[in-house]
Amino acid sequence: MDIKTQALEAHKKWAGKLRFEAACPVTTREELSLAYTPGVAEPCREIARDEALAYTYTRKWNTVAVITDGTAVLGLGDIGPKAALPVMEGKCVLFKAFAGIDAMPLCLDTKDPDEIVSIVRAVAPGLGGINLEDISAPRCFEIERRLVEALDIPVFHDDQHGTAVVVLAGMMNAARVTGKKLSDMRVVVCGMGAAGSACARILLEAGIGDITAVDRVGILSQDTPGLDEDRRALVAKTNHAGISGGLEQAMRGADAFVGVSGPGVLKPEWVKTMHSGAIVFAMANPVAEIEPGLAREAGAAVVGTGRSDFPNQINNVLAFPGIFRGALDVRASRITAGMKVAAARTLASLVDENQLGPDCVIPSPFLPGIGQAVGQAVAQAAREDGVAKG
Amino acid sequence: MDIKTQALEAHKKWAGKLRFEAACPVTTREELSLAYTPGVAEPCREIARDEALAYTYTRKWNTVAVITDGTAVLGLGDIGPKAALPVMEGKCVLFKAFAGIDAMPLCLDTKDPDEIVSIVRAVAPGLGGINLEDISAPRCFEIERRLVEALDIPVFHDDQHGTAVVVLAGMMNAARVTGKKLSDMRVVVCGMGAAGSACARILLEAGIGDITAVDRVGILSQDTPGLDEDRRALVAKTNHAGISGGLEQAMRGADAFVGVSGPGVLKPEWVKTMHSGAIVFAMANPVAEIEPGLAREAGAAVVGTGRSDFPNQINNVLAFPGIFRGALDVRASRITAGMKVAAARTLASLVDENQLGPDCVIPSPFLPGIGQAVGQAVAQAAREDGVAKG
Repeated sequence: MDIKTQALEAHKKWAGKLRFEAACPVTTREELSLAYTPGVAEPCREIARDEALAYTYTRKWNTVAVITDGTAVLGLGDIGPKAALPVMEGKCVLFKAFAGIDAMPLCLDTKDPDEIVSIVRAVAPGLGGINLEDISAPRCFEIERRLVEALDIPVFHDDQHGTAVVVLAGMMNAARVTGKKLSDMRVVVCGMGAAGSACARILLEAGIGDITAVDRVGILSQDTPGLDEDRRALVAKTNHAGISGGLEQAMRGADAFVGVSGPGVLKPEWVKTMHSGAIVFAMANPVAEIEPGLAREAGAAVVGTGRSDFPNQINNVLAFPGIFRGALDVRASRITAGMKVAAARTLASLVDENQLGPDCVIPSPFLPGIGQAVGQAVAQAAREDGVAKG
Repeated sequence: MDIKTQALEAHKKWAGKLRFEAACPVTTREELSLAYTPGVAEPCREIARDEALAYTYTRKWNTVAVITDGTAVLGLGDIGPKAALPVMEGKCVLFKAFAGIDAMPLCLDTKDPDEIVSIVRAVAPGLGGINLEDISAPRCFEIERRLVEALDIPVFHDDQHGTAVVVLAGMMNAARVTGKKLSDMRVVVCGMGAAGSACARILLEAGIGDITAVDRVGILSQDTPGLDEDRRALVAKTNHAGISGGLEQAMRGADAFVGVSGPGVLKPEWVKTMHSGAIVFAMANPVAEIEPGLAREAGAAVVGTGRSDFPNQINNVLAFPGIFRGALDVRASRITAGMKVAAARTLASLVDENQLGPDCVIPSPFLPGIGQAVGQAVAQAAREDGVAKG
């Protein structure tokens, strides 16, 4: 049975991957009168008196909504809110399994950024955090920025920042393996959608030497036509090297390649022109920018992909559960760049020294306690950044 | 320890009454690749091809959102969305405990009916049904009507219809106990807010002889100033007897009193003027329209209240879990009057013949299988009314 048939049969058997369960007994009249009327009136009154008590008397402290409009689901594109639901349920399962977080899916039947912002603001009172998921660029940038400004709970677009955190973790370890320093490295980021932009941002935040941003039109600069405001501001911080042309030109002498673009866009002969100890993270899914074996043959020292059947999988599940765990634990009002870099640093440190090498720059998601470890580092960073409220 | 302290301590200990749990394993790479990428892409594709498959591959078939704006919470009034959360979590617990339904609370930070309608429409794709809760009248009427028109899943404002279904069940049995026929009875409905209007509607639907609707201003007629459109249309179907005046005049010769108004509004001497075999459902909470003992002394044959410490508790938990169970099981597109009456009839029939009497016209919510029994009757009525899609 191939994986497609297997996945369909499994989903049919599960009949939904998530359950909502009672955490209090209601089997007698006395229990019912505590959990519901008349007893429930008392915590209501207390919260009406002091809103912060919602964290004490309800599940707000541990609840995250996974919210999508279904416009950029996996590699499938704009398949709509109903078809996005299996992914959102799966995401909620990962929140629970990897960080003990109660997550609920909300698939929105609208693509209008104004409406999405107003809906997410409106549902926020009962939530401890918001995970935006699979919302297409450039709408996702505006939606996330407006929500971060409007709300006092963390808002996190995982497609951007989750990927970026794991890429940075892998890059830190790949630099160690190849004897490079981040501040001396030039990294080609190929594909400047949601994930690519965030990768460029976090690499800059972590002190990378230079970024060469490449999109379908070639190497990006401030003068590239058609860039939205967010990306223009980002691109302004890249290309200190002043290279022009396309991906071929960008790759010459580069230390690393970060691909979140499309299948097969990176030619082996271009990998050969990279600086020694070349690092290639080719994350297009399901078919990478370059076949990992070909990248190694062409001289890449470290190769990572988005796939679980090759070494060094860049997998968001390493990051988002722990990031939210930490943010929820200290009631962070937002998720800062410092919190993301702290998450990446912790992930990098979780690779066992004895295992660190070209085929192991990223820890396994099944390493026990990984969500908690990331969470502790993120909580500490939140305190240092002054965004912890609890 | 009094119930207030007890309820606060219990809520603190529970730290939220609801948990979201994974229903599929993700402890190995293989399991992860079935429940999440790449396996999850296949059910997504299938649902994109045929939206109805969301009922097969996701939890939509069993998921209800409990949605409030926090404007009319219990007897507490407009306490806002955060303070409403303990009630909504409690409601979700009841959905699970009494009918196996996965319910999630959504507390909205807006009171604007247009915005509430647009939010609920937008979150509907992942839901099998919508339970509106504790939204103040008359806004609740418009919001529910617009949502019923807009959506192909059931929308149910429990404060209206849940109460009404249980009142009808109790009235059916109280009529048997007192030897009355519904079609010969005149019922005074006191308080024409959300619940009172719905009680009047369902009693008319079930063939009650006459309703006398009373509000603060007295007995209502089409000409009463200040009535919104919904209530004007409803009142037009009442008062065949042509009585004018206030509650005192309404009570003379009435067969039954249904109170969803305020504490102590019904005087014992007025109960004495009712028709023989008088039925008094005094549901104001926590202090009823008349103290049950005083009503009995004044000659009432059957007395019910909203409280669990007196006989004949009119408790919504008898109705809404089973009504949604039935609606979900046949994928009803809406909840018809016929489905509500069927629920009431089943509830009435669940009182054991040997126990039926003045102090037992309503079954216990802890009767095993009550949600399933109501669900089956509701599902059957949905099929008969042509609203069952599955």
